[in-house]
Amino acid sequence: MLIIGERINTSRKSIALAVSSKDAAFLQAEARAQAAAGADYIDVNAGTFVDDEAERLIWLVELVQEAVDLPLCIDSPDPAVIKSVLPALRRRPMINSITLEPSRLGGILPLVIEYKAKVIALCQSEEMVADTVELKVRMAGELVAKVTDAGVPLEDLYIDSLVYPLATNFQSALASLGAIEQIMKGFPGVHTTCGLTNVSYGLPARKLVNSTFLVAAIVRGLDSAILDPVDKRLYSTLRAALLIAGKDPNSVGYIRAFREQRIE
Amino acid sequence: MLIIGERINTSRKSIALAVSSKDAAFLQAEARAQAAAGADYIDVNAGTFVDDEAERLIWLVELVQEAVDLPLCIDSPDPAVIKSVLPALRRRPMINSITLEPSRLGGILPLVIEYKAKVIALCQSEEMVADTVELKVRMAGELVAKVTDAGVPLEDLYIDSLVYPLATNFQSALASLGAIEQIMKGFPGVHTTCGLTNVSYGLPARKLVNSTFLVAAIVRGLDSAILDPVDKRLYSTLRAALLIAGKDPNSVGYIRAFREQRIE
Repeated sequence: MLIIGERINTSRKSIALAVSSKDAAFLQAEARAQAAAGADYIDVNAGTFVDDEAERLIWLVELVQEAVDLPLCIDSPDPAVIKSVLPALRRRPMINSITLEPSRLGGILPLVIEYKAKVIALCQSEEMVADTVELKVRMAGELVAKVTDAGVPLEDLYIDSLVYPLATNFQSALASLGAIEQIMKGFPGVHTTCGLTNVSYGLPARKLVNSTFLVAAIVRGLDSAILDPVDKRLYSTLRAALLIAGKDPNSVGYIRAFREQRIE
Repeated sequence: MLIIGERINTSRKSIALAVSSKDAAFLQAEARAQAAAGADYIDVNAGTFVDDEAERLIWLVELVQEAVDLPLCIDSPDPAVIKSVLPALRRRPMINSITLEPSRLGGILPLVIEYKAKVIALCQSEEMVADTVELKVRMAGELVAKVTDAGVPLEDLYIDSLVYPLATNFQSALASLGAIEQIMKGFPGVHTTCGLTNVSYGLPARKLVNSTFLVAAIVRGLDSAILDPVDKRLYSTLRAALLIAGKDPNSVGYIRAFREQRIE
């Protein structure tokens, strides 16, 4: 299970504040906490800084790399921003994200090749919202074709089937789960990933809904997620889900997490 | 989702004590608490009273029926015990449980017919432990055949594919989950049910493992469970699982549970 730590995102108030005030110590602590909690990649997103996103991201990337020895996940929809940030990276990055939109795909794919990056691809196009299993899987197939045709190894592709709020479509989680299963079976070697927060939008007790969705997705084959590993209850659920999904031989990971007091 | 409340079981120390000391008030409070928490059936089990199980069960049945207006689930492997308890029941009962063992099947099935009972059937025979999807589904097929041949409607059959401890087989949950899905698809109209505690035997933080298994099972199609609805964290997870599984249109059940302060 590849964990992409989501905390360093300026859509979070404390992060935006720390970026504004150049509080490197606070941001480095966020990076270290996620590394200690088991993150494999640290996502960095400065999307709320519309005017100087690239500059802020470069600053963030440099301070995070000083703090932790993990690869980063550069999170922006803008090819120009990604292009200016990539040279600052010490390790092979992940890029978050491409879609089927031609400008985004055409702008980012050459950078994926040039930097031998891993890449997150969303089941999303300009024309439509993929809200059924069939549409999600069809878009996944188009993404696989375009990305591998461009020369990116299938193993570097992380498909996010996207999950829409249950509050507006009570079968939206089901559609994502079905797509995850079909994508993992249909394209052996590819990865799937997912953010968790969208599913619970508009509902009470959102963290419960998010973590329950994570369990279901892992049992359906999800092998990566964008989440907050510092959240103890969520991390506990993640470890238990891997156990239930038969992905933790001899319960080694679960028992280790318990001994490290990371299970509640 | 049909919930069978499991609390009144003499394998629990407090229940055994209350049965021994004839503390009807305590046991009736246990029944009422489960009814208030959403139980559809109240399971009654006096299996630890080897010498006078039937007498204890009859006493239990009568006091529980005084306390709550719910049907009961008579929990014993012994056909003779079940036979002597059934006349005491006011409402159509559930019987827990039959297996493929000839004496148990042959002894209990006529009682299921006579009392128009619902019945829980375990994927278990005298010859072998069904620990793979294939064996579980094969036994489920045999159970369906024997039960419906005897004249029991398929809708009254609750198949428990059984889950063995992950601590001794790290893919045991996966086998149960696969079986649940195949049974629900293969025998339209049949139900599946499951106890949760076995899966976590020998592991730390068992409740977390149990509730995570419940999520996975509900997403795979499980439509009944034997559990403690009074356990707030477990009940929260159950409601969230129904939401994720697309079984809670407009999130009505989840939001109601939240308003009733049953979500944590």
